[in-house]
Amino acid sequence: MVSEAMPARVSEYRLRRRVQFHEVDSAGIVHFSWFFRYMEEAEHALWREAGLSIARPGAEVGFPRVSAGCDYHQPLRFEDVFDVTVRVEAVTDKAIRYACLVTRDDTRIATGTLNVVCVRKGPDGTMKAVAIPADIASRFVVAD
Amino acid sequence: MVSEAMPARVSEYRLRRRVQFHEVDSAGIVHFSWFFRYMEEAEHALWREAGLSIARPGAEVGFPRVSAGCDYHQPLRFEDVFDVTVRVEAVTDKAIRYACLVTRDDTRIATGTLNVVCVRKGPDGTMKAVAIPADIASRFVVAD
Amino acid sequence: MVSEAMPARVSEYRLRRRVQFHEVDSAGIVHFSWFFRYMEEAEHALWREAGLSIARPGAEVGFPRVSAGCDYHQPLRFEDVFDVTVRVEAVTDKAIRYACLVTRDDTRIATGTLNVVCVRKGPDGTMKAVAIPADIASRFVVAD
Amino acid sequence: MVSEAMPARVSEYRLRRRVQFHEVDSAGIVHFSWFFRYMEEAEHALWREAGLSIARPGAEVGFPRVSAGCDYHQPLRFEDVFDVTVRVEAVTDKAIRYACLVTRDDTRIATGTLNVVCVRKGPDGTMKAVAIPADIASRFVVAD
Repeated sequence: MVSEAMPARVSEYRLRRRVQFHEVDSAGIVHFSWFFRYMEEAEHALWREAGLSIARPGAEVGFPRVSAGCDYHQPLRFEDVFDVTVRVEAVTDKAIRYACLVTRDDTRIATGTLNVVCVRKGPDGTMKAVAIPADIASRFVVAD
Repeated sequence: MVSEAMPARVSEYRLRRRVQFHEVDSAGIVHFSWFFRYMEEAEHALWREAGLSIARPGAEVGFPRVSAGCDYHQPLRFEDVFDVTVRVEAVTDKAIRYACLVTRDDTRIATGTLNVVCVRKGPDGTMKAVAIPADIASRFVVAD
Repeated sequence: MVSEAMPARVSEYRLRRRVQFHEVDSAGIVHFSWFFRYMEEAEHALWREAGLSIARPGAEVGFPRVSAGCDYHQPLRFEDVFDVTVRVEAVTDKAIRYACLVTRDDTRIATGTLNVVCVRKGPDGTMKAVAIPADIASRFVVAD
Repeated sequence: MVSEAMPARVSEYRLRRRVQFHEVDSAGIVHFSWFFRYMEEAEHALWREAGLSIARPGAEVGFPRVSAGCDYHQPLRFEDVFDVTVRVEAVTDKAIRYACLVTRDDTRIATGTLNVVCVRKGPDGTMKAVAIPADIASRFVVAD
């Protein structure tokens, strides 16, 4: 996934996406749990834009979520095309905070946040928060 | 689902659940989006305890989420048995707020909130917030 | 979704897709249940290519699956880019049969089938198989 | 999960389950992809009944699916209580074949099959079919 040329540092990514049938519930709207997956899909696309994979095979660190939230303003329906914009809100020693916005054309659909922390996995499976490796942290810039 | 005898009014429900394989991600822990489904499963079990279905066929009103959030304290893994406790935090004219707690034995796994609003669906599919019908609202009591 | 000009009749569609994190299980490969969703996503893209929606709001008929199957040849992993090709194998009075092929570059990943039937929903929710409306059936041609 | 006393050999397991809201699609019926998860949930319960976990932490072998199929006879709806019966149809050197039946009371809802193979994962992530370890294979008996 890493291109030869050094990728630019990133602070924001907009993912275009279409609502799939299996994401819609019996009320005819996207089930609320899907918005957390949409936000994460955009986050991972942001990492790829930075020349990174958030879950590289053999990686010593991982990035589980420590909190997530979403406010739902308008529903999405089957086959709607929408955008998920993820922005880097803060990068600290061990954590990254993202703000997310879901829109369909000019309509605000949802707003959310993801807080992820860098962890190292012990041999017994326990996870310990550690500093984000410099070659990862250096790729992200807080959005204006 | 409604028994002959009037069900008790409800304020809290504890759902016991086991982690399924398809809920676990490649880091070996339950994917964060699943906690929102766990909370909703407990909410719907609370409604059944009250003699209600949150999505009765032919119902004139529905209960979409307007916001949801979760803090993740410890991971859950494949085949873990855990509890999801949902508590009614507030019942207003048109909305219900729940607080949720996920535990595995004595370990706090996650805490979350769900805010749902009562809506009536128009013929064009638009949803308008309306008062919770009295026969529904009367079944819920705010937890101590 | 319907363009002014009559869309071409369709017999095959190839959908390009990337594996998302939440689709990967703890063995590090896409969970087998996801291939059925991948096949359905390609099917619905085929319908759009034909100027149709498989679940148009207010439609009198629906297209539930009566059988589905998949053979898994090679695994897909996080961030793999792959193609899902869906082909119309048979169109009868009330049913459509698709053959599906999942590939990553030149590697055969999976092969599957979907059999869907046209139904009309009764007022009590029961579904009865009926003839596929002519304006839908006429858009599909069996692939060579 | 392994009890002190030797668990009985197993050939069949019936899992009781309730349809959750997030499993139901916009047609008001359980999305067809969920039946594969229901079947797998019953399979894993069968393994637990045998004193085993199909994905024990640190296990040298895994059991990916090589094929799966399902025929859908009647739909399941929100809050339906149903049973998934999984039966061991064949145990060979490297593979297990299951037959599955989904019922709601006396109504046949779906019938399916799962074929799983025992694999050892190489350091590069590739999977190679190997003999099922004797302490696992010895726990399963083909159903009458």
